[in-house]
Amino acid sequence: MDLECGNRELVKQGLLGRGWSRIKAFSNNVKTEVLEFFGALRKLGQDDPRRVVHSLKAGLALTLVSLFYYYQPLYDSFGVSAMWAVITVVVVFEFSVGATLGKGVNRGLATLLAGALAIGAHQLANLSGRICEPVVLGFFVFLQAAVSTFARFCPKIKARYDYGLLVFILTFSLISISGFRDDEILELVHKRLLTVLIGGSTCVIISVLLFPVWAGQDLHNLIASNMEKLGIFLEGFGDEYFKMAEDGESKEGRSFLQGYKSVLNSKNNEEALANFARWEPRHGRFQFRHPWKQYLKIGALTRQCAYRIESLNGHLHADIQAKPEIRSKIQSTCTKMSMESGEALKELSKAIKTMVKPFAADIHIENSKSAVKNLNTLLKSGLWDDETDLLEVVPVATVASLLIDVVGCTAKIAESVHELATMLNFEALELTVLRETEPEI
Amino acid sequence: MDLECGNRELVKQGLLGRGWSRIKAFSNNVKTEVLEFFGALRKLGQDDPRRVVHSLKAGLALTLVSLFYYYQPLYDSFGVSAMWAVITVVVVFEFSVGATLGKGVNRGLATLLAGALAIGAHQLANLSGRICEPVVLGFFVFLQAAVSTFARFCPKIKARYDYGLLVFILTFSLISISGFRDDEILELVHKRLLTVLIGGSTCVIISVLLFPVWAGQDLHNLIASNMEKLGIFLEGFGDEYFKMAEDGESKEGRSFLQGYKSVLNSKNNEEALANFARWEPRHGRFQFRHPWKQYLKIGALTRQCAYRIESLNGHLHADIQAKPEIRSKIQSTCTKMSMESGEALKELSKAIKTMVKPFAADIHIENSKSAVKNLNTLLKSGLWDDETDLLEVVPVATVASLLIDVVGCTAKIAESVHELATMLNFEALELTVLRETEPEI
Repeated sequence: MDLECGNRELVKQGLLGRGWSRIKAFSNNVKTEVLEFFGALRKLGQDDPRRVVHSLKAGLALTLVSLFYYYQPLYDSFGVSAMWAVITVVVVFEFSVGATLGKGVNRGLATLLAGALAIGAHQLANLSGRICEPVVLGFFVFLQAAVSTFARFCPKIKARYDYGLLVFILTFSLISISGFRDDEILELVHKRLLTVLIGGSTCVIISVLLFPVWAGQDLHNLIASNMEKLGIFLEGFGDEYFKMAEDGESKEGRSFLQGYKSVLNSKNNEEALANFARWEPRHGRFQFRHPWKQYLKIGALTRQCAYRIESLNGHLHADIQAKPEIRSKIQSTCTKMSMESGEALKELSKAIKTMVKPFAADIHIENSKSAVKNLNTLLKSGLWDDETDLLEVVPVATVASLLIDVVGCTAKIAESVHELATMLNFEALELTVLRETEPEI
Repeated sequence: MDLECGNRELVKQGLLGRGWSRIKAFSNNVKTEVLEFFGALRKLGQDDPRRVVHSLKAGLALTLVSLFYYYQPLYDSFGVSAMWAVITVVVVFEFSVGATLGKGVNRGLATLLAGALAIGAHQLANLSGRICEPVVLGFFVFLQAAVSTFARFCPKIKARYDYGLLVFILTFSLISISGFRDDEILELVHKRLLTVLIGGSTCVIISVLLFPVWAGQDLHNLIASNMEKLGIFLEGFGDEYFKMAEDGESKEGRSFLQGYKSVLNSKNNEEALANFARWEPRHGRFQFRHPWKQYLKIGALTRQCAYRIESLNGHLHADIQAKPEIRSKIQSTCTKMSMESGEALKELSKAIKTMVKPFAADIHIENSKSAVKNLNTLLKSGLWDDETDLLEVVPVATVASLLIDVVGCTAKIAESVHELATMLNFEALELTVLRETEPEI
């Protein structure tokens, strides 16, 4: 009996112990996940502190607009319509000035246009008598919703006026429907338009005046840094590829060779930024009608180059490698091609960043082109033994050929950066040096 | 005098004539542009008739919801709050079921949560007395707006709950601010929640019942058609590349060789569709927890292959071409590699589309691999003359090497399609043939 009791006690303790350890493990799990989540949030802020500033700005804009409710004189004139200002701030306030301005202008214009049309629809429906009125109104609502929704599929319209069409559908429906119940439709339109304008301009003012984030500047930097990433890869590639056979060391982990990967998929990002940038007024070194299209062109050429680099990168990890003696023969020219085009890209990136004419890159472009010529001569010269196994030449030949492609791409990129420099009257470097003592304009 | 008059008359007529021709030219311009615009709209509809259906569905949903205003008993119970149902329909109704469901669920849950929290904030602010109330409320509004705005930067949250956070900020601000003026805050939350639910469910019901557009199905088709595009290029490439020197005909215009370009930039599209698809319930051959991640994996591998093909495409238009006698030596094996991997990709695409096991592709994969082996033997056999200029071997060697890469990529794609087939229990083809007389499940 005592023994049984003791056993039961043990079992009970065992169960309790297991239950307790499970609870402990669960709470530890939760703790780790929460810590990880906050770690991720912290990293988001550290990666780009403008995100923290933007969040504070959004809070500020909302708090400011909510004064319409708290402050009696303001509330007296707007009443519940002040709600529209709050809604406008929440949906219009975006990260960059361009996006905020674009949405604000879209919202303002769409509200104006839809309000005017809705008043017209309301008058027409009024003429048809009380019984037919809902039918006529319903028909108008259906028609404009269907047409506007369809127009939103058009890529050109979608890029710039998607949000405007959404607001158009919303405002037209709301006002024409409300008109059925509320006879003071003009007052309604007037209040809605005014509150939208107040909300929109609050957003735009805060977005422009407090630590503005310019989409144009971001696009400018993105294009330059993408080029730089390719440059870093190319500068490192020659050494990595030819060193490999010597020390047999794995280079999977070389992170500087992986930076270019983000360039492959940057198209959507670039296009979005260019769309926002089109709304932005003159700021710093950017005018209102800055040639954003040229940036997109340079971005597309950079991506072309990145595709070649992706193929090159595959050869760093390929199973079949050419014999060291074969590779060593073209090592110096290939390394030079890679190094010079990498330096050219880095110089081009620097030229864009500092907005000076890309003369420094031209030298590297010339050097890389002459390296291509040297390679061709080398290949022609029959430097190779007769017993050279062609199978072993293929990988090296491929790398050489891809590098030749890369040199071609780099030259094209340089050309389009020169075009940009002409469009924007980039300063020539000599002038900058001379002017260094003068105050900046 | 008469002469002068005549001259004046002539000048007048000339001016009039010029003015008239300008007006005519302008009106012609406008006419052309309007015609072009409608042509573009028509093409949008013809390319994907579901767009027209979607527009009509959006119109229908909006008209249905506006009944809340027209129909007296409904208006009596909701009043002006019915506006929220209209707003919900306009912003929630999206092209695919998944997007609509995702936005609807986000909006519903965010309204519920924000409403509850806003009531809590209102009670807390009430305790602090009439003078401090706006300050406390303002602080809460600022805090939640800043925190939620910051959380929207987190990529994982952005992918699934971006809209939910927007609605959270909106609802919390509106209700906590309105609470300052309106004492019936519970009634307000209740009405808002109910109208949002009515609007959201109208959208979901119409979206699911009337000609549903499933994002999952679209992703499935996109992955399959991307593979097919690469297959079409590869099937054509061998012939095009080796034919060129023979007839010297330009192939810039061959559109079937350009179809693959869209694959290079399909990443964002695939990810968006996968995010929508996760919301979708079981439909047709797709379950609720369909392995969408595997589709993204296949998509990524397909893009890897597309990058190689982009390099190959560059060699179709390259200036330096190898001599025909060199190319002819490896023509048959290279054409075979290209053709077989192209056919393998097309079979894989067909296997995904019809959801049968991709056995048919395996044969082509094996063939392409043995072609690679043949090429290696050919290169080793020293088939080449001693006087062969290496410079002329390089382009052909590059094409051969890129094709070897493509064969490797294709094998990887086949592997991941096999994984998908195992996950989803694709039917084996034999079974399908036997079961052909049975009704489809």
